[in-house]
Amino acid sequence: MDDQLQPPVRTVWWNEDPSATPSFSLGLLDQTLLPQQVVELSLTHELAVAEAITSLRVRGAPAIGVTAAFGLALALRRIVYDYEQQGHELSLALAQEQLFRTAQLLRQTRPTAVNLAWALERMLLAAQSVLVETSSVAALVERVQMEAHTIAAEDAAACLQMGRYGASLIVDGMSLLTHCNAGALATSGLGSALAPIYTAQRQGKQLHVYVDETRPVLQGARLTAWELQRSQVPCTLITDNMAGTFMRQGKIQAIFVGADRITANGDIANKIGTYSVAVLAQAHGIPLYVVAPCSTIDLALETGDGIPIEQRDPGEVSSLGGQMIAPLGVAIANPAFDVTPHHLISAIITEKGIARSPYVQTLQQMCAISNEKVSSLDE
Amino acid sequence: MDDQLQPPVRTVWWNEDPSATPSFSLGLLDQTLLPQQVVELSLTHELAVAEAITSLRVRGAPAIGVTAAFGLALALRRIVYDYEQQGHELSLALAQEQLFRTAQLLRQTRPTAVNLAWALERMLLAAQSVLVETSSVAALVERVQMEAHTIAAEDAAACLQMGRYGASLIVDGMSLLTHCNAGALATSGLGSALAPIYTAQRQGKQLHVYVDETRPVLQGARLTAWELQRSQVPCTLITDNMAGTFMRQGKIQAIFVGADRITANGDIANKIGTYSVAVLAQAHGIPLYVVAPCSTIDLALETGDGIPIEQRDPGEVSSLGGQMIAPLGVAIANPAFDVTPHHLISAIITEKGIARSPYVQTLQQMCAISNEKVSSLDE
Repeated sequence: MDDQLQPPVRTVWWNEDPSATPSFSLGLLDQTLLPQQVVELSLTHELAVAEAITSLRVRGAPAIGVTAAFGLALALRRIVYDYEQQGHELSLALAQEQLFRTAQLLRQTRPTAVNLAWALERMLLAAQSVLVETSSVAALVERVQMEAHTIAAEDAAACLQMGRYGASLIVDGMSLLTHCNAGALATSGLGSALAPIYTAQRQGKQLHVYVDETRPVLQGARLTAWELQRSQVPCTLITDNMAGTFMRQGKIQAIFVGADRITANGDIANKIGTYSVAVLAQAHGIPLYVVAPCSTIDLALETGDGIPIEQRDPGEVSSLGGQMIAPLGVAIANPAFDVTPHHLISAIITEKGIARSPYVQTLQQMCAISNEKVSSLDE
Repeated sequence: MDDQLQPPVRTVWWNEDPSATPSFSLGLLDQTLLPQQVVELSLTHELAVAEAITSLRVRGAPAIGVTAAFGLALALRRIVYDYEQQGHELSLALAQEQLFRTAQLLRQTRPTAVNLAWALERMLLAAQSVLVETSSVAALVERVQMEAHTIAAEDAAACLQMGRYGASLIVDGMSLLTHCNAGALATSGLGSALAPIYTAQRQGKQLHVYVDETRPVLQGARLTAWELQRSQVPCTLITDNMAGTFMRQGKIQAIFVGADRITANGDIANKIGTYSVAVLAQAHGIPLYVVAPCSTIDLALETGDGIPIEQRDPGEVSSLGGQMIAPLGVAIANPAFDVTPHHLISAIITEKGIARSPYVQTLQQMCAISNEKVSSLDE
C-alpha cells in the first residue's frame, strides 16, 4: 500500500515534551548543514522560525508553509508561556495581536512561494472561526495548534497522492532528471517531485535519477542526492550545465520538478534553472512534469509575469563555505527563482490528479475538487 | 590600432635569465589559485609542465598548445643542462629521444583540445627539418626554441585578428554572454571569445558581459570575471542555470564562446555547458559565435561524435576548496566538455575570418588561406 511509504527523513515537526522547558518547540532539520551534519533544531521563539526560513534552514514551498503554520502556533504558545512565567494571564486581544504580528513577520521572510501566504491565511481564518464561538485563549491556542497539525498532515497525505499520480507516468527502466530539491526535505511528507520516484521504486520499477546540483545553494547536491541515497534510489549527481548533454545523449526520458507558485494559466515559478531545463526538455522531446500540492496554485495571478521573484544575497554565488570563488567587487545577479511558461510543461501533478493543457481550465477544475473526491483529471 | 591592445594578464611565457640557475624556465600564471592569489610559476622540468596542464594550472586550448610547445623546448634545454652539469655532452640521438618522449608525455595530459596535439606535431616537424641540415644539438635546441616562440607569437597575433573580426559582430550597447574562459588566460594573447569584447571596448562600444560561472571548475567566476574586471569591462557574474532566464528577459543579444576542437562539419567541443547555452540561444533567436584560432580546427574528424571527451575527477563536482558539497559515495558524472552541433552555431570566427554555414565548405576554405592573405570569408 502506498500509504505505508514513509518519508526518508523528517523535515519539520512539533515537539511536546512535559519534561522540557518550555514543554513545546518546533522541530526542524537544519538543511544548511546537510549533507555533512544532521542537526535537529528545537525552536521556541517565532523570531527563530523567521530566521530559519530566511536562512534556508527549512526550504521548499510546502515545508515553508507547514513551518509558517507551526510558527504561528509556536508564537501563541510562547507568549502564553511567557505571561504564565510572569504570573499573568494573556488577554484575548493580545493573543490575537500576537498572531497577526507573527503572520506579518513570517509573510515577509520569502516572497515567491505562495504556500507561505496560503498557510498563514488559513491559520488566521481558523483563529477567527474559533473566536466566533468563544473568547477563551486556551480554545484559541488549541484551535491554532490543531490547524497547524492538520496542514502538516494534509501536506503529507498530498505527497502520497502526488506520488501515486506521478508514478503512473514513470515506466520501468526510465532515467529521470530532477532539479533542486522537491523531496521529503521540501515537504512534511514524501516530497512533491520526488514522491513519484519513491512510489515508482516501491512499485518495483527500476529507475535512475540524474540530480542537478542546483547552484548557487546546491539543494540538488546537498539535499536531493542525500535523500535519494538514504532511500537507495540509484542516482548520479551532475552540474546544472550537464543536463542538456545527457538529454542529447538520450539518457533522460522524463523530468520531474516541483514548483513554488503556479498561476492560473499554468506558468510556474520554481528554483532558478528550471526554465533552462524546460527549454532543453522541449528541444529534446522530453516531457517535463511539475509536481506540487494545490496549496502552490495561485489562481489570483493570471500569468507567471506577476510572480515576485526573490533576489538573494550575492554572497551565495561568490563564496562557498567561507571560501571566495569570485573576484572581490564583481557584480553578481542572484534571482532565486525563474518562471517557466505553461507551454513548456507537459503536465501539472497535484494531490488531486494530473492536469494538462489548457491549464487555464484544468487547474481551476482541479482546485474545485474537494479533497474527498480526488481523482485524475485526465483519465 | 588594434595591435596596441595589450592582454590584461600574461598566461604563459619563456624566462631567460643568466643570473638564475638554471638560466631558463617556463613561466605560467597558476590559474588554480585565481582570483584569490596571483602566483607565477617558473617550471624547469617537463614533468612539472605535464602536471600543470593536467591540474589546470594552465588551461584553455590555445594556451595548452603554447605551453606544450614551450614544454618541449624546456625538456630539451633541461636535459642539455643536466648533461653539462655532469660534464657530459648530450648526443643528438638522446636529444631526439627526449623530444619524442616528452611529446608523448604531454600528448596524454588532456585529450579533447586538439591544439595540444597540433602544437606538438608542429614542434616535432620543426625539429626534424633542422636535422636534415645539421647534426648539431645546439642547432636543434635553437630551432625548437624558436618554433615554440613562433607558435606563441602567432597565437597572440591570431587573438588580435579574432578580436577584429569578432568585434565587427558587436553593436554599441550590446549585452553579451560568455561561458567558461576563452580570454587572455586561455591564450598567449587577448583571448579567443573575449578578444572581440576587448576590441569592441577599445573601439568605444558600450558593452555588458554576463559571465557564466561555469561549474564545476568555475573558470567563468574565477578567471573570466577576474580578467574582465582587470580590463574594466562591465560584467555580471551569474550561475550557469540563470543564463536561460536572462535570455528570456531579452538581456542577452549575442553569445561568444571558445572551442577546444572544431571538426570538419563545424561541430565543436567546448567546456561542458556550451551545448545547453547553444540550445537556449537558438530557442531565443540569439546568435552564438564560436571564436577559436585555426589550430583548433581538426579537419581529420568529420563530426563532433568523433571527439574524445575528457572525463575528470568526480571530486571537482563533490568538493570545493576542500569542503564536501555532496554526500559521500554518491555517483557523479564529470565530463569536462560537450559537443555543440554545427546547426546551433551562427558563425565560427578564426584569425582568418568569419566562417558561416555550410561549414564543411567554409572551414576547409578558411584553413587553406595562408596567414599572409587573411580576410573575412563572408565579406
